[in-house]
Amino acid sequence: MGNPVDEPVDDEIGIDWRRLEDVELTPILAASLDAFYELGYHGTTVREVARRVGVTVPALYYHHDSKEGLLIALLELSTADVLTRANAADRDGGDDPLRRLANVIEAIVLRMTNRARLASLEGEVRYLSDENRQRYRAVRKGVEEVVLRVVQAGAASGDFTVEDPAETTRALLGMCQSIPRWYHAEGTLSPEEVAAKYVAIAMKTVGVQPK
Amino acid sequence: MGNPVDEPVDDEIGIDWRRLEDVELTPILAASLDAFYELGYHGTTVREVARRVGVTVPALYYHHDSKEGLLIALLELSTADVLTRANAADRDGGDDPLRRLANVIEAIVLRMTNRARLASLEGEVRYLSDENRQRYRAVRKGVEEVVLRVVQAGAASGDFTVEDPAETTRALLGMCQSIPRWYHAEGTLSPEEVAAKYVAIAMKTVGVQPK
Repeated sequence: MGNPVDEPVDDEIGIDWRRLEDVELTPILAASLDAFYELGYHGTTVREVARRVGVTVPALYYHHDSKEGLLIALLELSTADVLTRANAADRDGGDDPLRRLANVIEAIVLRMTNRARLASLEGEVRYLSDENRQRYRAVRKGVEEVVLRVVQAGAASGDFTVEDPAETTRALLGMCQSIPRWYHAEGTLSPEEVAAKYVAIAMKTVGVQPK
Repeated sequence: MGNPVDEPVDDEIGIDWRRLEDVELTPILAASLDAFYELGYHGTTVREVARRVGVTVPALYYHHDSKEGLLIALLELSTADVLTRANAADRDGGDDPLRRLANVIEAIVLRMTNRARLASLEGEVRYLSDENRQRYRAVRKGVEEVVLRVVQAGAASGDFTVEDPAETTRALLGMCQSIPRWYHAEGTLSPEEVAAKYVAIAMKTVGVQPK
C-alpha cells in the first residue's frame, strides 16, 4: 500500500504537494490580498476592499467582522496551505531523513515562489491583536514542527550532523521565508529551479555533503 | 602593523564592529522609526511624526521633504551601518576565509538582534518609489557583496564546499534577516549567543564540518 517512489500524491489527504494550483480565494479575500499588498495593512480600509470587490461595506461586514478579520483569514489560509503541503511532502519521504528534508524544503520553497504575495503577508503579523497573533503563531509553529521533526530524525539516525536542531530549523525556515523578498525582483529562475538550489543548500546546512 | 587576533577595532575607519552603541538618530528619525514600527509606513502620517517630536509640520518638512524621505533616511542609515560593520568584520578576519565568514555573520547577526526594530523596516521597502527602491537596493547589494566575496574566497581556497556561491550568499543573508521576526518574541538568548549559533550554522552551510 506504500506510495511508489515517484508518485508524490498523498492519498491520505488527496493532494499533490508539488502542484500549486491557483490558490482559491473568495472575491473578498482576493481583493483584500491585492489591497494589503499594494497599500499595506494600515493603508487599507474596509471601504477600499468593498470598492474593489464591488460590494457595499455592510455586505462585506456580513462575511468578515473587521479588517483584522480579513488579514487573519488570509494568514490562516496561507499557513494552513503550507502546513498541509509540508506534511504531505514529509510523509512522501518515507523513512529516509534526506528525502524527507529535501521534500519538505521543496514544498516550502515552491509555495514561497509561486505564492510570494500571499507569503509576504507574514510581515503584517505584528499588527494583529495579541490574541490573534498568538493564534496565528500556533498554526505557523506547525510548519516549524514539521521541519524540526525531520531535522531531529536525521540527527538521530546519524544522517545529519546538527548541533542545535531548533536553531537549525529556524535558519532553514528563515532562508526559505526570505525568498519572496527577492524572487519577484529578479525572476530568471523557475520555482522548481529555486527549490532545487535550496534543497542543496539545506542539505549542507544539516551537514550532508554532496556525493 | 596587522591587528592582533583579539582586537576587533578596525583602525581604518575607527569602529569596533562588535560594539553596537545606541544608534544615533535625530529626534525626527527616532520618532519616525517608532511610528513606522507601531503603525506601519502607510498608517503613519507626517503630522503624527511631527506630533511625536513636538514640532510643527512645516518644521519637519524643513528637514525631510516627505514621509518617503523619512523612510529612505532610516533605511539608508540602517544599511550603511550594517555595511560598514560587515566590511570591518571582514577585514578583521585577515586572509582566513573561515574567520572572515565567522566575523561577517557575527556582525550581521549582532545588528539584527540589537537593532531588530530598525532591521525590520526592510519590510517597508516595497512601498518606495521605483527610483528610491533602486537606490536603496544598490546600498543593500553592498552587504550581499561582502558575504559573496567571502564565500567566493573560501570556495577558491578550498576551505568551503559551495556549489552556487550567489545562492548560498542569499540563503545566509535570508537566515540572518529573518531573525528580527522571532528575536523579540522569545528572547532568552543574548545577541552574542544568537550570533554564535548562526556562525556555527553558516559554517555548515558552506560545507565546513565542525572539528
